[in-house]
Amino acid sequence: MVHADFAPIIQPMPSQVDRLIRLALDEDIGTGDLTTSACISPEAQVTARVLAKEVLVLAGMPFFARVFALLDPTVLVEPLFAEGTLLPPGTVVAHVRGSARSVLIGERTALNIIQRLSGTATVTRRWVEAIAGTGARVCDTRKTSPGMRFMQKYAVRMGGGSNHRFGLDSGVLIKDNHIAAAGSLTAAVERARRVAPHLMKIEVEVTSLEELDQAIAVRADIVLLDNMKNEVMAEAVRRVRASGSSMLIEASGGLTLERARSVAETGVDLLSVGALTHSSPSADLSLDF
Amino acid sequence: MVHADFAPIIQPMPSQVDRLIRLALDEDIGTGDLTTSACISPEAQVTARVLAKEVLVLAGMPFFARVFALLDPTVLVEPLFAEGTLLPPGTVVAHVRGSARSVLIGERTALNIIQRLSGTATVTRRWVEAIAGTGARVCDTRKTSPGMRFMQKYAVRMGGGSNHRFGLDSGVLIKDNHIAAAGSLTAAVERARRVAPHLMKIEVEVTSLEELDQAIAVRADIVLLDNMKNEVMAEAVRRVRASGSSMLIEASGGLTLERARSVAETGVDLLSVGALTHSSPSADLSLDF
Amino acid sequence: MVHADFAPIIQPMPSQVDRLIRLALDEDIGTGDLTTSACISPEAQVTARVLAKEVLVLAGMPFFARVFALLDPTVLVEPLFAEGTLLPPGTVVAHVRGSARSVLIGERTALNIIQRLSGTATVTRRWVEAIAGTGARVCDTRKTSPGMRFMQKYAVRMGGGSNHRFGLDSGVLIKDNHIAAAGSLTAAVERARRVAPHLMKIEVEVTSLEELDQAIAVRADIVLLDNMKNEVMAEAVRRVRASGSSMLIEASGGLTLERARSVAETGVDLLSVGALTHSSPSADLSLDF
Amino acid sequence: MVHADFAPIIQPMPSQVDRLIRLALDEDIGTGDLTTSACISPEAQVTARVLAKEVLVLAGMPFFARVFALLDPTVLVEPLFAEGTLLPPGTVVAHVRGSARSVLIGERTALNIIQRLSGTATVTRRWVEAIAGTGARVCDTRKTSPGMRFMQKYAVRMGGGSNHRFGLDSGVLIKDNHIAAAGSLTAAVERARRVAPHLMKIEVEVTSLEELDQAIAVRADIVLLDNMKNEVMAEAVRRVRASGSSMLIEASGGLTLERARSVAETGVDLLSVGALTHSSPSADLSLDF
Amino acid sequence: MVHADFAPIIQPMPSQVDRLIRLALDEDIGTGDLTTSACISPEAQVTARVLAKEVLVLAGMPFFARVFALLDPTVLVEPLFAEGTLLPPGTVVAHVRGSARSVLIGERTALNIIQRLSGTATVTRRWVEAIAGTGARVCDTRKTSPGMRFMQKYAVRMGGGSNHRFGLDSGVLIKDNHIAAAGSLTAAVERARRVAPHLMKIEVEVTSLEELDQAIAVRADIVLLDNMKNEVMAEAVRRVRASGSSMLIEASGGLTLERARSVAETGVDLLSVGALTHSSPSADLSLDF
Amino acid sequence: MVHADFAPIIQPMPSQVDRLIRLALDEDIGTGDLTTSACISPEAQVTARVLAKEVLVLAGMPFFARVFALLDPTVLVEPLFAEGTLLPPGTVVAHVRGSARSVLIGERTALNIIQRLSGTATVTRRWVEAIAGTGARVCDTRKTSPGMRFMQKYAVRMGGGSNHRFGLDSGVLIKDNHIAAAGSLTAAVERARRVAPHLMKIEVEVTSLEELDQAIAVRADIVLLDNMKNEVMAEAVRRVRASGSSMLIEASGGLTLERARSVAETGVDLLSVGALTHSSPSADLSLDF
Repeated sequence: MVHADFAPIIQPMPSQVDRLIRLALDEDIGTGDLTTSACISPEAQVTARVLAKEVLVLAGMPFFARVFALLDPTVLVEPLFAEGTLLPPGTVVAHVRGSARSVLIGERTALNIIQRLSGTATVTRRWVEAIAGTGARVCDTRKTSPGMRFMQKYAVRMGGGSNHRFGLDSGVLIKDNHIAAAGSLTAAVERARRVAPHLMKIEVEVTSLEELDQAIAVRADIVLLDNMKNEVMAEAVRRVRASGSSMLIEASGGLTLERARSVAETGVDLLSVGALTHSSPSADLSLDF
Repeated sequence: MVHADFAPIIQPMPSQVDRLIRLALDEDIGTGDLTTSACISPEAQVTARVLAKEVLVLAGMPFFARVFALLDPTVLVEPLFAEGTLLPPGTVVAHVRGSARSVLIGERTALNIIQRLSGTATVTRRWVEAIAGTGARVCDTRKTSPGMRFMQKYAVRMGGGSNHRFGLDSGVLIKDNHIAAAGSLTAAVERARRVAPHLMKIEVEVTSLEELDQAIAVRADIVLLDNMKNEVMAEAVRRVRASGSSMLIEASGGLTLERARSVAETGVDLLSVGALTHSSPSADLSLDF
Repeated sequence: MVHADFAPIIQPMPSQVDRLIRLALDEDIGTGDLTTSACISPEAQVTARVLAKEVLVLAGMPFFARVFALLDPTVLVEPLFAEGTLLPPGTVVAHVRGSARSVLIGERTALNIIQRLSGTATVTRRWVEAIAGTGARVCDTRKTSPGMRFMQKYAVRMGGGSNHRFGLDSGVLIKDNHIAAAGSLTAAVERARRVAPHLMKIEVEVTSLEELDQAIAVRADIVLLDNMKNEVMAEAVRRVRASGSSMLIEASGGLTLERARSVAETGVDLLSVGALTHSSPSADLSLDF
Repeated sequence: MVHADFAPIIQPMPSQVDRLIRLALDEDIGTGDLTTSACISPEAQVTARVLAKEVLVLAGMPFFARVFALLDPTVLVEPLFAEGTLLPPGTVVAHVRGSARSVLIGERTALNIIQRLSGTATVTRRWVEAIAGTGARVCDTRKTSPGMRFMQKYAVRMGGGSNHRFGLDSGVLIKDNHIAAAGSLTAAVERARRVAPHLMKIEVEVTSLEELDQAIAVRADIVLLDNMKNEVMAEAVRRVRASGSSMLIEASGGLTLERARSVAETGVDLLSVGALTHSSPSADLSLDF
Repeated sequence: MVHADFAPIIQPMPSQVDRLIRLALDEDIGTGDLTTSACISPEAQVTARVLAKEVLVLAGMPFFARVFALLDPTVLVEPLFAEGTLLPPGTVVAHVRGSARSVLIGERTALNIIQRLSGTATVTRRWVEAIAGTGARVCDTRKTSPGMRFMQKYAVRMGGGSNHRFGLDSGVLIKDNHIAAAGSLTAAVERARRVAPHLMKIEVEVTSLEELDQAIAVRADIVLLDNMKNEVMAEAVRRVRASGSSMLIEASGGLTLERARSVAETGVDLLSVGALTHSSPSADLSLDF
Repeated sequence: MVHADFAPIIQPMPSQVDRLIRLALDEDIGTGDLTTSACISPEAQVTARVLAKEVLVLAGMPFFARVFALLDPTVLVEPLFAEGTLLPPGTVVAHVRGSARSVLIGERTALNIIQRLSGTATVTRRWVEAIAGTGARVCDTRKTSPGMRFMQKYAVRMGGGSNHRFGLDSGVLIKDNHIAAAGSLTAAVERARRVAPHLMKIEVEVTSLEELDQAIAVRADIVLLDNMKNEVMAEAVRRVRASGSSMLIEASGGLTLERARSVAETGVDLLSVGALTHSSPSADLSLDF
C-alpha cells in the first residue's frame, strides 16, 4: 500500500481524536440504549461485517476501531484491507466481533466516522487521478468538519492527497488581510520570518503577478496563486522557475474536478481543494449481522 | 419566522456544543496563529461581514456567535436575518466587530460551522418543498457528523424539517436485530414497553405488511416502513388507518428527492432522510473585511 | 429477578456515572491516603466482604464495582446476589479481593454509593408493596441527588419502581408556569406537540377537573394530577376512561406511604414520589476484612 | 451569624463544586428543556421566590446561586438571610430574578442542592442543641453523598457542627486494619508520624481501654473511641486527662440523637455522626413564581 | 531503602499527576510525531536504557513509567534501583522495552520529568547530609513548578527530606498579613483554631522573640522563625523548650547550604528550603538505544 | 521593546496554558485556604506590588495576570514594564488590586510562574549577549518543564532568544535513531519529505562531516551539528556555504555560556541550549502588601 507508512501516525491516537469520539458516543448514547437494553441479552455475542455498498476508497478503520476500544475494549475489529484501497461494491471491509449490545450501541457512531472519511478519500482519489502524471499534488485546506481535522486530513492522505498545514500554529500563510495590515507583502513576510520558529516555512497568497514578483524577491518558501486563470498561473510558474528559486507553487480558489488537469499542467506544484473535506458526500457502508 | 421559537432552545448552550467548539478551536489554533501574531497589531479593530455567496437557507448563527464568545467575548456578532430565512447570493448575513486578531483567528472555525449547517438547512428545505401540501413531514436520522448531532438537528428544523430522536436514550426504535433477539416483533415491543420510561414512545421498523399487522396489534406508537415500494406503503397506510390506531407512520430507506412527493402522497406521516445530515454539501459563505 | 434485564443498561457505563465516580474518588483521595501509605504494605492482599447490616433491597453493585475498576482494575468485586434482592441482616452481599491498599482507599467511596442506592431501593419496595395488586406503578421524579440521577433511577427500578423522565430533554411535562405563559393548557400542549421529536410523549399537569377536561380534549399523552384528594382523582380517572382515551394518569404531590394504597385504588396508573430519591436514608452496609 | 466568616471559604469556589454542578446541569438539561422551549418566550422575565415550607436551618445559597452563575450569569440570586439561620415555615429565603427560561431550567438542580444542604444543617442543629453546654462539639464523617463532600461539610458548619477531615489526604486516622497491618497501635502511630507532613495531626481509633493506654503512651494527637458504652468512655476521658495529655477525644459509632447528651457529658470533645450527611432527609423548599 | 515505603503512595496515582502527564504529552505530541512516523516502522521493537550521566539521587521512575502507561501500555519500564538511591555516573537506571515508535514519542516527556525530580532529590540530599546528626529535618515549601506539586514533594522525600503542607487546604500557616488582618497573632491563632478541622495543626510565622512569646502563650502547634539570625533562633529554641511546649520550630528564609548546619545546630526542628523545588537544576539522564 | 509584537500571541490564551494554570490552582487551593478564610474578611481590599528582588529580565506577566483572571476576575493586574525588560533589584514590576482573600490565595501560584519564566528570560539574555554581533541566534529545545512548554518558549523569546519547534508535530528533526531505522540519512530525509505537510521544514542531525555532506546532497532545510568541536563546526559551515545551499546550521550539545561566543563565531546560525529551560534558577520576585 502506498500509504501504509502513514497508518501508525495514529499510534498514539492524538487526544483530539479521542475527545471527538467520546463526544460522539456521549451524544448518541446519553443515559443508555433503551431499545437494546430491552431486547438484547447481555450475554449475546455477534459477528458483524462492515460492508461497502458502493465503489469507495476505504479510510478510517483505525478510528472505527477506536470507537469500540473506547466503548467496550472486548469488541474486536479486524480490518480486511489496507487503508486507501479502492474497493468494489459488496466488499466485506472488516469483521466486528463481540457483545451484541456493544456492537449495536457503537454501530452508528463508528459508521458515521468511516462513511465520512471514506467519502473524503474517494473524492480525493478522483482529483489525484485527474492530474496523474503532471507532477502536481492535490492537498487539503482547513475547511474541515469541526473536531474532525486530524481524521479528515488522514482521509485525504489515504485518497492519495497530501496535507496543507494542520492549523494556524503549524505554518505561516500570509493572506490579503495580513498584507494590508503589515503595509506590504514584503513587510509581512519579513515580520513573519523574524518570529516564526525556524522549522516553519512561510507561504504567501498572491492575487497578481506583481505580488508574485514581490514574493520571489523576498524569498517566500511557498506562494499561493489565488483564483487565477490558467494563463496567469502558467506565467507565474515561468517567473518562479526563471528566478532560480526552489519556491513551491500552490493553486487555490475556483478549482473544479473538470478543470483540475489543465491547472496542474500549468506547472504548479500543488492544488489545494476545500471540497475534499467540506462537501464530499458520505460513502455508503453498513454493518450487517 | 416559522422557526423563531426554536432559537432559544440554545439558551443555555448544551455542554456538547461547547465541547465541540472548544475542540474545533483547539485543533485549529493550537499554540497560536503565527501569521496573525506576526502581521496584525493587537490594537487593530475590524468590522467584517458574513456574506452568502449562493442561494441558501441560513442556519447556525447562534453557534457562529458562540465560537467568538468562547474565543474572545469582546467580539460582537450581529445577525441580520432570522434563522431559517432563504437568502439570495450576495446577502450580508451578519456583522462581526472587534479585535482584528480575534476575528481572523476565529474565522475558519466559525465559518466551518455555519457553512455546514446552512448546507443542511438548504437541502432540508428542498425536501420540505417537494412534499409541501401532502401533510407529511421530513425528518432527520442519527447519521450526523460526529459531535454535531445537536447542531445538525437544529439545522434540519431551520430548514423546515422535524427531528427524529436525538440519541439512543431518547426513544425506542426496534429494528430487525432487536426483533430477532426478542423472538418476535410482539415480544420486542412488549419488552420495551415494560422498561422504557412512560414518557417515551415506542417505534418499530417493519419490512412487510405481515410485520405491520403485528405492530398494529401490539399497539406500537410509531411504525417505520423500511425500504418499501410506494404501493406497499400505501397499503400500509390503509391498514393503519383502518385499525383506528393513532399510530404515526414513517417512511425510510431508499428515499430520493425525486421520489419524495410520491412517497408523501401515500399518506405516511414522516419521511426520514439520512442525506440531510450525512451528505449535504457546505453552503458557500465567507467573511469579508 | 424481575429486573435482571436492566442491569446491562450499565454496559457501557454512561459518562455521567464515570464523571461522578471520578469526582468522588478525587474528593476523598486528593493527594493520597496518608494512613494507608504509612501502615499497609503495597504487597498486602486482602479479601473483604460487603455485609448487609439491616434488612435491605440490594442496589448498586455495578457502581460499587465501577469504583474499583476506575481506582485499581486488579481489585475483583464478586456480587453474590442479583440486584433488587431483598436481603436479611448479616447477609454477605459480595466479596472484594485485591491489594489491601486499594481496597482501603476505595472503601468509603464505594460504600457511600451502595448505601444510598440500597436505601432508595428499599424505600421504593415499601411503596411497591403498599400498592401491590392495584395495577398502579410507583415512579420517581427529578428530585435526585446532584450527579446521581442515573444511579438513583436505577435504584428505583431495582426496588420495583419505574422511571419518570431522566431529564428536561427526555419528555415534555407541562406545568402551571408553562400553561400561564402559553395562554392556556390547550395552547401549551399544541405548541409542545409542534416542536417535540415524534418519539416524545407529552404530559400535562392539571390541578382541577376543568383542566383535566382540556387535557383530554387536546389529547395529551399523559396527565399528572397534582395534589388532589382521592375523590377528585377517582373522578378524574372516570372521566379519562369514559373519554375512550388511552391517556396515562399520574398522581403526584402530598403522597405518603400510608396514603399510597388508597391513591392507587382510585385507578391512577402511576404514583410519582420524590421521597424515593430525596429523603431515603442510607441502608447500612459495611466492608469487613 | 456565628458562621458568617465561613461563607467566603467558597470564594473561589473549589473546582470540585463546579464539577458537580456542571454534572448536575448536564444530567438534567441534556440537549435542552423541550417544554420550556415550546412554551416560554425567550424574552420573558420573571421574579421568583425561594420559599421555606417547613422549619429549617438555611444552608447552601452560595451553591444555589452558583448553579445560575454557571447556567446563565444574567440571573440574579438575592439571599435574604444569613446562612445558618433557623427559619419558620413560609419564610421567603431569597429572590431569583431573570430570564423565565433560565430560571425554569435551573430550578430543579438548584433546589435539589439547597434542599439537601438545608436538611443536613437542620439535622446538625438538632444534635448541636442536644449537647449544648457540655463543651463537646458535633462533627461529620466521610459518609457523604458522592461529589458533595465540600458542600455537605459546609452545611454541617452552618448547622453549628464542626468538620472532621475532608479526605484521606487531610489527616491521619488509624483504624483497626492499619493497626493489624502495622503490628501494633504503637507501631502504626510511629510509622504515620514518620511520613505525615508536620502540619497533619494523627488520630487513632481504639476499641478498648488497653488500646487507649497505648494511644496515650505513644502521644497520638486525637483518640477515637469506637462504639463504647458511656461508662467506658467516661473512664477513657479520665485516663486521658490524668495523663496530662492535650489529646482530643472523639466518640463515634452507635450514636443517636437520644443518646447524644449523655455521651457528651462523659467529657469527650467530639461526637462524630455519619447520619448528618448520609441519612438527613431533604428540607422542603420550593421556587414560587 | 529508607524511603521504600513511600513509593506506594503513588498507587493510585493522584488525578493531578495524570492531568499533568496528559498535558505534557499533548503539548509535545500534538497531532503526531512527524519524524518518527516517517522513519520508524510500526513493527519495530526496541530496548532502551535510562542512563545516569552524572552523580545523582534517583527519583521519579513511577512517573517516568506512568508516561508510557498513559501513552502506550504495552511499553515496559523496568527500574533497576530503588527510588532515592545515590548513583554514580554511567549507571543504567532502568530498561524500557517496546514499540520503537512509542519509546521515541514518549522519551522527551518521560525524561523531562525524571531529570527534574532527580535534580530535586539530589539537591535535597545535599541539605540532608549537611545537617546530618543535628536532629533537624529539611523540608520543602509551596514554591514548586506549576502542576508538579505532588511529584516534587515526592522527590524531596526521596532525597531524604520531609514535606511541608501540600496546599492551602492541608494545614494552617498564619503569616504577617493574616496577623495584621486579625488584629494580633493571638487573635489569628484563635480564629484559625475555631474553624480548622480538628486534624489540622496550626503554624504561625514570627519575626521576633516578642511574637514568639505570643505564639507560645496561645499554644500554636508549630512556629516558623522567619529570616532570623542564628543567635535569635537559638534563643527562640530556648524559650520554646523552657515553656514545656511540644511546639515544633521551623527555620525559614535566607537559608543557604553553607549556613544550613549552623542553623540546624541552634536546635530548630525543621529547615524549610524553597530552592529544593524552585531552583534545583535538572539531573543529567538520557535514554540510549 | 523588541518583542512587543509577541505578546498578543497570548490572545487567545492557548488551552494548554489554561489547563496548567487550573491544575496549579487546584493543587494549591484544594478545598480552600484555611488560613485566609479564618483571618481575612471577605470585604477586605488590598493593593499589592510585584517586586523584583534581584536583577532580572521580566517575563510572564500575561500568565501571572491569567492566574487571577481564572481565580477571581475582579482582581486587577497592572504591569508597569514591557515584557523582556531588564530590571534592577527593587523595581516594582506590577500592581495587583482587589479582594485581599483572592490576592492571597492566588499569590503563590502566580509567583511560581513568573519566577520561573523571568529566570529563563534572564538566563537566555546572558546567552544572547554573549554572542551579540556574531549573527547567530540562541534558541531553546523541548527540554521544558512538563506542561510549561508554551510559557517557557515565550520566556525564551522575551530574553531575546528564538524558538525551536514547539513539539513533535511542528517540524521534522531526524536524529540518529531515525537514520538507523531508515537505513541512511538520505533515505530518512526523503521519507520525511514525502509525508510531511509542505509548510514543514526538515532538519537533520549530523555527527560527522560525512553525514553533513549527505545532508547537503539531499538538500535538508536545516542541519544540526551535534556535539562537535569548534574546528569541525567551522569546516561544516564552510562546506554548507560553499555548496550554495541556503540551509540553516544549528549547533547543539555540550554548549556552555563560556564557550558560546567561540561557537557562534564559527558561523553557525543557531545555538540550541537545553539549559535555558531545564536548569535556569527561578528569579527572585515577591508580592508585597
